[in-house]
Amino acid sequence: MFPLAYVLCLWVVMIMAQEVESRTVTIGESLIERYIAIRSFTATLCETLSAEDCCLQSMANASPVRWHLAHTSWFFETFLLGLDPQYRVFDEHYEVLFNSYYNAVGEQFPRDQRGLLSRPDLDETYAYREYVDEAMLARLQSEWPADGTDVAQIVELGIQHEQQHQELILTDLKHLFSKNPLFPVYRDGERDTGTNVGPMNWSTCDEGIHEIGYVGEGFSFDNELPRHRVFLERYKLANRLVTSEEYLEFVEDGGYSKPELWLALGWDYVNREGWEKPPYWYRVGDEWHEFTLAGLQPLDLAAPVSHVSYFEADAFARWAGARLPTETEWEVASNNCPTHGNFADKLIADSVALHPNSSGIAGDSLAQMFGDAWEWTASSYSPYPGYSAPPGALGEYNGKFMCNQYVLRGGSVATSSTHIRPTYRNFFSPESRWQFAGIRLAK
Amino acid sequence: MFPLAYVLCLWVVMIMAQEVESRTVTIGESLIERYIAIRSFTATLCETLSAEDCCLQSMANASPVRWHLAHTSWFFETFLLGLDPQYRVFDEHYEVLFNSYYNAVGEQFPRDQRGLLSRPDLDETYAYREYVDEAMLARLQSEWPADGTDVAQIVELGIQHEQQHQELILTDLKHLFSKNPLFPVYRDGERDTGTNVGPMNWSTCDEGIHEIGYVGEGFSFDNELPRHRVFLERYKLANRLVTSEEYLEFVEDGGYSKPELWLALGWDYVNREGWEKPPYWYRVGDEWHEFTLAGLQPLDLAAPVSHVSYFEADAFARWAGARLPTETEWEVASNNCPTHGNFADKLIADSVALHPNSSGIAGDSLAQMFGDAWEWTASSYSPYPGYSAPPGALGEYNGKFMCNQYVLRGGSVATSSTHIRPTYRNFFSPESRWQFAGIRLAK
Amino acid sequence: MFPLAYVLCLWVVMIMAQEVESRTVTIGESLIERYIAIRSFTATLCETLSAEDCCLQSMANASPVRWHLAHTSWFFETFLLGLDPQYRVFDEHYEVLFNSYYNAVGEQFPRDQRGLLSRPDLDETYAYREYVDEAMLARLQSEWPADGTDVAQIVELGIQHEQQHQELILTDLKHLFSKNPLFPVYRDGERDTGTNVGPMNWSTCDEGIHEIGYVGEGFSFDNELPRHRVFLERYKLANRLVTSEEYLEFVEDGGYSKPELWLALGWDYVNREGWEKPPYWYRVGDEWHEFTLAGLQPLDLAAPVSHVSYFEADAFARWAGARLPTETEWEVASNNCPTHGNFADKLIADSVALHPNSSGIAGDSLAQMFGDAWEWTASSYSPYPGYSAPPGALGEYNGKFMCNQYVLRGGSVATSSTHIRPTYRNFFSPESRWQFAGIRLAK
Amino acid sequence: MFPLAYVLCLWVVMIMAQEVESRTVTIGESLIERYIAIRSFTATLCETLSAEDCCLQSMANASPVRWHLAHTSWFFETFLLGLDPQYRVFDEHYEVLFNSYYNAVGEQFPRDQRGLLSRPDLDETYAYREYVDEAMLARLQSEWPADGTDVAQIVELGIQHEQQHQELILTDLKHLFSKNPLFPVYRDGERDTGTNVGPMNWSTCDEGIHEIGYVGEGFSFDNELPRHRVFLERYKLANRLVTSEEYLEFVEDGGYSKPELWLALGWDYVNREGWEKPPYWYRVGDEWHEFTLAGLQPLDLAAPVSHVSYFEADAFARWAGARLPTETEWEVASNNCPTHGNFADKLIADSVALHPNSSGIAGDSLAQMFGDAWEWTASSYSPYPGYSAPPGALGEYNGKFMCNQYVLRGGSVATSSTHIRPTYRNFFSPESRWQFAGIRLAK
Repeated sequence: MFPLAYVLCLWVVMIMAQEVESRTVTIGESLIERYIAIRSFTATLCETLSAEDCCLQSMANASPVRWHLAHTSWFFETFLLGLDPQYRVFDEHYEVLFNSYYNAVGEQFPRDQRGLLSRPDLDETYAYREYVDEAMLARLQSEWPADGTDVAQIVELGIQHEQQHQELILTDLKHLFSKNPLFPVYRDGERDTGTNVGPMNWSTCDEGIHEIGYVGEGFSFDNELPRHRVFLERYKLANRLVTSEEYLEFVEDGGYSKPELWLALGWDYVNREGWEKPPYWYRVGDEWHEFTLAGLQPLDLAAPVSHVSYFEADAFARWAGARLPTETEWEVASNNCPTHGNFADKLIADSVALHPNSSGIAGDSLAQMFGDAWEWTASSYSPYPGYSAPPGALGEYNGKFMCNQYVLRGGSVATSSTHIRPTYRNFFSPESRWQFAGIRLAK
Repeated sequence: MFPLAYVLCLWVVMIMAQEVESRTVTIGESLIERYIAIRSFTATLCETLSAEDCCLQSMANASPVRWHLAHTSWFFETFLLGLDPQYRVFDEHYEVLFNSYYNAVGEQFPRDQRGLLSRPDLDETYAYREYVDEAMLARLQSEWPADGTDVAQIVELGIQHEQQHQELILTDLKHLFSKNPLFPVYRDGERDTGTNVGPMNWSTCDEGIHEIGYVGEGFSFDNELPRHRVFLERYKLANRLVTSEEYLEFVEDGGYSKPELWLALGWDYVNREGWEKPPYWYRVGDEWHEFTLAGLQPLDLAAPVSHVSYFEADAFARWAGARLPTETEWEVASNNCPTHGNFADKLIADSVALHPNSSGIAGDSLAQMFGDAWEWTASSYSPYPGYSAPPGALGEYNGKFMCNQYVLRGGSVATSSTHIRPTYRNFFSPESRWQFAGIRLAK
Repeated sequence: MFPLAYVLCLWVVMIMAQEVESRTVTIGESLIERYIAIRSFTATLCETLSAEDCCLQSMANASPVRWHLAHTSWFFETFLLGLDPQYRVFDEHYEVLFNSYYNAVGEQFPRDQRGLLSRPDLDETYAYREYVDEAMLARLQSEWPADGTDVAQIVELGIQHEQQHQELILTDLKHLFSKNPLFPVYRDGERDTGTNVGPMNWSTCDEGIHEIGYVGEGFSFDNELPRHRVFLERYKLANRLVTSEEYLEFVEDGGYSKPELWLALGWDYVNREGWEKPPYWYRVGDEWHEFTLAGLQPLDLAAPVSHVSYFEADAFARWAGARLPTETEWEVASNNCPTHGNFADKLIADSVALHPNSSGIAGDSLAQMFGDAWEWTASSYSPYPGYSAPPGALGEYNGKFMCNQYVLRGGSVATSSTHIRPTYRNFFSPESRWQFAGIRLAK
Repeated sequence: MFPLAYVLCLWVVMIMAQEVESRTVTIGESLIERYIAIRSFTATLCETLSAEDCCLQSMANASPVRWHLAHTSWFFETFLLGLDPQYRVFDEHYEVLFNSYYNAVGEQFPRDQRGLLSRPDLDETYAYREYVDEAMLARLQSEWPADGTDVAQIVELGIQHEQQHQELILTDLKHLFSKNPLFPVYRDGERDTGTNVGPMNWSTCDEGIHEIGYVGEGFSFDNELPRHRVFLERYKLANRLVTSEEYLEFVEDGGYSKPELWLALGWDYVNREGWEKPPYWYRVGDEWHEFTLAGLQPLDLAAPVSHVSYFEADAFARWAGARLPTETEWEVASNNCPTHGNFADKLIADSVALHPNSSGIAGDSLAQMFGDAWEWTASSYSPYPGYSAPPGALGEYNGKFMCNQYVLRGGSVATSSTHIRPTYRNFFSPESRWQFAGIRLAK
């Protein structure tokens, strides 16, 4: 109930914003509209959730939904509103409570204890969001002193940042729900299940010097820069993602008990954690099921497998006589693909379940490059030649994580379609399984 | 809001119960009244709490309040209602979800993951309580087949069990709130702070054969049985609990940095956990404060120190040139003391803060034996000579915990006055600090 | 080779000592002889060991043999030789390196890192022992200034201390060897295996006030004092230890998979550690074997079971419809038993394997009370009424360990016959399994 | 004493080998000579060590020296001698005991328990080596059936493998000794300490397509293959390694307390492990010292800093306004450098201490590229384009470790000069500090 009122309120403010737009010179109307739309989409994602759903933390890597709600507001408060000495923060404790990892801002409440905070509660957290939104819209619609601050750039970063947390809201929540024997349903939806996706085909790319990295007028993260030259040998890329059916063959062929298929570190995880299937797969009687955001469902064999770690993706590829593509290979191949696909905003608008499906496959052409499931690449996350992190706290956004992580490309059903780009670099540690991460093979 | 309705509903049912009482022969009216009163008091304790406050778990030893709400109902459902083959459980998942540790009942949801369950939510949990209460009252008011089941005994055990969880609701919540830098207030109340409690005096008991253990018609736990003879040497017991002022002297005298005062295991904790004061004491500027259920408050020097571990109690006693009493010594001395004191039900009724205070001291006589703070004894928790656990799941109630725990006596501000007895044996592991546990000296 | 020379050297010194005895007045000849004998027996125990055998540490609770060799010398150096300001220590680093846990002496090299020291090596360690022995004998044979130091008492304590470490040398070594798939043999010996020990009988003791604790002229540890009165109900004690055959029945009856038999903490260990039999039992093909100090051997069914934890002893007793005796019950019953039995010094002298056996059973009388295996009692290790630890570092010997440990009585095949008494209180934490600890039942 | 006899014995065998050489056709004489020389050098490295020094394990990542002695022989036994069905292994337990990580060979004794094996002792381990050497020499000098096995290739791999373990013997031993407050000296030697190495200069390389990876007739590991093309932007490389003096400036400038200098994962290590200087640096009074293989020594300010983790190398580079080179940049630049430097075999031959020093610097030219200290690169260890691991157990040698490790180049004072190549890829996890790893800057 509350989130709906909140959304209405945002749109009223937006309408007001449109009326006053002629007096604003600094910030473009479309950015304000996008600010409102993205903030409102966060509330949409949470509208079905109880106070309890929003406050629990299921592991150190995942955060409570309510923490995401607060942290994304904190981001605007800290990096934009706080630049104005007149601005009064909503609550001075929040500086520490909702700082994720910005050492330059100051101390941080311990990450693994985010689930120990029953206060501020959900209502107060929404009040915080409202407070920040009001201040933001007031700020964006007023004249901004020409002090060198690139306000639009910070707002854009805040929007992109919020979209990243929208994805985490979905994946963290799915992880939490998976721990509950009641297998709660986050959001029902039509299931677009397929039966036959056709054999895997291979698309060939020629050797040569290519360019990768972002170029253009729009937004990109610092880690997509600078655009630079790379030399690639000739390679082939599979036309679609690996399906659950194909992955099930690997499982049933004893893939999880053959050390020769695994990286040494991956084999450690297999043994230490008892991995023998993707984390959300369950055998119920004779049938394989999968826990999804729409509850426990029969396994859709035609859908791309997801929630596999880098170790599993790599082992599967070795078992299949192939390998994972490098991020360079992926990006070069993606140049001719439209960034269409199964994305969170589209699926919700169409009342389709938030789960990878086979609808995006069209014949033999390179498909499913965007949406459905992030694609693990063989590339360790590292700086592009000439990369330098921005100064100050925002320089902590990407650069400091460039170690022991692997790059994933293309977005997933938990990503918004307005958030992805061919040059977009996502990254997770190789044992991570709680993201919608899948497999595309290369040769 | 909900708890209030719930309480009303319970009382309506009670009035109905009184009308039908003439038809019930098996279960006494007073037991039914007590059932209703105790169940209602649980709701009273939770009436100020949000859904978030009720679902978090701050450590493996503590449970979410909502879990306590469900588990206490599960207890009646499992051990009484379930005896009737006609009874339909509220939700079949609950058998596992809310089983604490009864192996004879079956599998248990892992204790350290109780804080991962956002469902059933608080409303559904109250609905569960209502469902059980209705079934219980219907059952208690009907004729019970003479099949040998001592129904009254099970109901009584369930009531006593619920009172134990009422205490845990308070202490687990206090622990949770203490992790929050906002220092939430559970319940405001008048603070009965003293300034001078007078010097400690010593009460002497003579050597001889004494009897301890429960005897009588009323209820006792199995661990208080059988009453038996013990030989005691002459000893002295302090007339009151150790105050925060006295404990502060110990702290300021470097008590936490003198290994000669500590048991070896306690010294390990001091060093590993960085103990240097009771867990809820904080220095704010120049002043000592204490986190209480009424929020952060200046340290009341006259109040009994609480939330100390057995190790701290033992080290303090050594520092003070005394020792802790054995449970036998405590029980024998308590025989002449009325079981009055600062208890949860009384303090709430009187709108006094739920925190130990010095109001119970009267001159030099043996005081504070009951209420305020549990008193650590030097006695390891072990079976009395001739003890045997009851058969079946209820036999797991006490006996299986008789290892590496120490006995505490007398109740605390989180205990109900109707729950305590001189023979009552509470027990916790020696490093536990989250209970209202304090210190009485012996010689 | 070296230890033999060392023993010879000690005896030469002893002969010299006898010649000069008329000039010594303070220390009795027999104490000097015992000093030499006990020190020499330590070397005897190690004479079959390689430098490697002596330097490894298999867990934090066990120490390298070489550490025991050094620490026992350090004890005499620190607590006796060091009293003489003229005395020059062998190596000043040893004060820290070989201090076990005496905070009053100073810093200690971390216990769990004793296995990281390759230096001083074995030769140097024996040189250290020789250095200390020479200084000790010189000291003991000279006039001692009447300064109040009870030299004989300290020497006696050092001797008793060394005997305790002799036992640890054997049990720590056995634990280390058990980790090696080669199952090394420490010392071969005749195996006194039995076939039939007869049924268990019960010896009855009457109720009444008894006295326990040490009294007399000889040596006792502080924890055996003071002698005091206790009241005991009538009880029965089994006439012999539980055999491996009886314990095997428990194993084969699923004893390790029935939670109702176990203390809660024990059940945690069963599950966490995967206990399903005593630690040194192995199934080789169809036959049960046991790792012994004489290597891997077929299980001797008639021998007392050993290397069980308190949890296993307690669970077995419950399975058998009995219980463990309290230490009081044990001591009172032992009063009429001779302290004969299978002890380390006797077994080595007789070339019998260092393993419990059934030779000590004689008809239905109370047997095996001493030797073979320590007997777990139901008593938590706590101070006797009126106990006070001695002042200074030696006060750390016993008192500070009185927490979360259980008392064992009677000695084992790793104890020397000259070390045991009816009042002797050994103690280990309830999960400990690396000692020769067995089971006697009570009712 | 024993190792010397062993070396003599090897040379006698070699002389015999030379006499029979005319009858051997398959294996070249020089390979046999190298086999003997490398095997003998292992013994040389251990000749100063006691049995105790050789059997301890100081952490899971390090192995006892004796384990290295056995494992390197096991390697020849398993991968070459075992191919002959007539061959009888020295001890069948060794297959498991000394298998490091070859799943295709079978089960492995747990890596972190290698320090629990006192048997086989040092003498027996040398006997094992002798047994394998005799069998190897017999085998190498006889006609080998033309069955397709590339015997020379396996022998060569075994030799290179042994050289890698020679380096580990030194670094594992140094780590072990560093835990001992006695700071044992492994091997004395002349210290070549400098006072001034001159300012850092920069060597420039131009952009373009380069080739890296091994090419030629000689030996290389599979991970150096295939040679392939890469595109490099223009870059600069420092002419020498970072000195201890420069690193000390970083330390004294608070480098370890400035989060902005560190990768997030590195900052975790700094805080969790309390890093505040390189692990072997110690402040003694006012002076900085360093634990070396020649014992505790005053810090040589002119020598290259070593024993830093990737995190420290990366943080230092950021502090210095530079970065670490990629392995591609390093290899391309190294093409014109002779592979001379301070290596283990040279230093021991010259009786110089096994510690990095400044002797290799010559004016402004690119120096210290080989020897002294391994150089951390910014490159995650990953397969070259087109890489494929060999089939069978030897395919586990390199490929399966390509995850969460960083590449180091150039060798160290613990490497042999005959072992290194410009294309050589060493790799360790980024937190590793026990290798002689240092820093070269790039821009």
